[in-house]
Amino acid sequence: MKLLRVGTTGAERPALLDADGVLRDLTGVVGDIDGTVLADDAALARVRAAAEAGDLPVIEAAGLRVGPPLGRIGKVVCIGLNYHDHARETGAEPPAEPVVFFKAPDTVIGPDDTVLVPRRSTKTDWEVELAVVIGRTARYLDSAADGLAHVAGYAVAHDVSEREFQIERGGTWDKGKNCETFNPLGPWLVTADEIADPQDLTLRLWVNGTLKQHGTTAEQIFPVGEVVCYVSQFMTLYPGDVINTGTPAGVAMGHPDPKPYLRAGDVVELEITGLGRQRQKLKDA
Amino acid sequence: MKLLRVGTTGAERPALLDADGVLRDLTGVVGDIDGTVLADDAALARVRAAAEAGDLPVIEAAGLRVGPPLGRIGKVVCIGLNYHDHARETGAEPPAEPVVFFKAPDTVIGPDDTVLVPRRSTKTDWEVELAVVIGRTARYLDSAADGLAHVAGYAVAHDVSEREFQIERGGTWDKGKNCETFNPLGPWLVTADEIADPQDLTLRLWVNGTLKQHGTTAEQIFPVGEVVCYVSQFMTLYPGDVINTGTPAGVAMGHPDPKPYLRAGDVVELEITGLGRQRQKLKDA
Repeated sequence: MKLLRVGTTGAERPALLDADGVLRDLTGVVGDIDGTVLADDAALARVRAAAEAGDLPVIEAAGLRVGPPLGRIGKVVCIGLNYHDHARETGAEPPAEPVVFFKAPDTVIGPDDTVLVPRRSTKTDWEVELAVVIGRTARYLDSAADGLAHVAGYAVAHDVSEREFQIERGGTWDKGKNCETFNPLGPWLVTADEIADPQDLTLRLWVNGTLKQHGTTAEQIFPVGEVVCYVSQFMTLYPGDVINTGTPAGVAMGHPDPKPYLRAGDVVELEITGLGRQRQKLKDA
Repeated sequence: MKLLRVGTTGAERPALLDADGVLRDLTGVVGDIDGTVLADDAALARVRAAAEAGDLPVIEAAGLRVGPPLGRIGKVVCIGLNYHDHARETGAEPPAEPVVFFKAPDTVIGPDDTVLVPRRSTKTDWEVELAVVIGRTARYLDSAADGLAHVAGYAVAHDVSEREFQIERGGTWDKGKNCETFNPLGPWLVTADEIADPQDLTLRLWVNGTLKQHGTTAEQIFPVGEVVCYVSQFMTLYPGDVINTGTPAGVAMGHPDPKPYLRAGDVVELEITGLGRQRQKLKDA
């Protein structure tokens, strides 16, 4: 299923994109798309039955804002340097174990919302990523297979990053990863049953119409199941938590000088096979 | 005012410790102690008026669990190496600007709840910290004075840390800061008007009755107002966000070998002038 949330910021209602591409209202079936619903097999079964019955109310999609496909996100865990090609372009050794950092849930916006270039930023960069949404509490898991079994679904994430704040200002990467609007998510949360192999997805990102990133999750150093298993050794993952699993090559930082960092007026588009497409216009904060 | 939340985990109700040390029920006045209430001057005025009228229902404190004094925390920003004496003991240079990392809100527990030593941990360490609770949205602030004006109140925080996960496992500090139960908070959220000078507070921490940390916020490299102002340049702070402002000297990592890291059965107690006292027993996860 393709689950989403539509409406104004903070007042989104749950919806479903059906097999014919028609937007349908889930308001009468679940209160929201969030961790509580994702962990509730009965609620998901109700959504599935309603979708299959084909009688959910149609929503007029024209002009409607699409929000992030997940409400009340608990935490956003991010994996750094998780693609062989991206590690090469940054000049970093492939990490021996996953690099973990955080984005605050308040950085999450809808897939087509405005992204703000922070004040005093000169190195705002793009990163298309496969986001994993947790569906069951994951704590000290034993295997990658068990990791995958805790995944409710997948989405496109844009892990917007300010490289000076991230790398040149002391301390951890978090300083350059948490600026306002820095995590567009969606359009859809695609349930795991619809993704045959999360390690066979193509990721693409364009800036002002020029293809900048064109990778595949086959290049992930630590695949999705391993990432979930690994992270669960260090922290408990709860339903409604998100893991951004890293970006392939092609970010601005990997270009020769002068690096083409983002500025107000730029347009970024990104997509992942089966997970939909985002489009953001950049403005100054 | 001393605001707190009492009751079982996830079902805490708002309460107030009055000037006579009597626990009073705020259920009829506000829904919870959270960012929404802290940002609402009228709600806070109602609480203050009810407290002064002296007719709030008394709660029998005996046997009652105290939860974290803040619900629905948006994010927990942490400042590393923010005390001159702690920087010295870790062998680090005092940072040129604040070191920022994160704890997930789901690590926050009540002040006397059990702290879990993570599986495969050999270096679980303690850190008493002054926590700052944000009361107004802070975005690109101009001054330390403006930073202080965005603070709703203060609390004791225990920034429990696993040093191997934090420092020896690649990537950022977050990996050793986000284990389950790693952020006891409270007992009280003391409103900012009751803290004459946040840079004149004494912090103390004991392990099994032995004093291990005995510092003062006067030793902070970046004082509270500067920290809030600084962080607001990199991310937006919202009402109900928390900043843990760093720990003074005396952590296990700063001891000569063999370093006295925490184990199941240990008892940690900590307190800050005017902000109350915590007591945690450690168990294995």
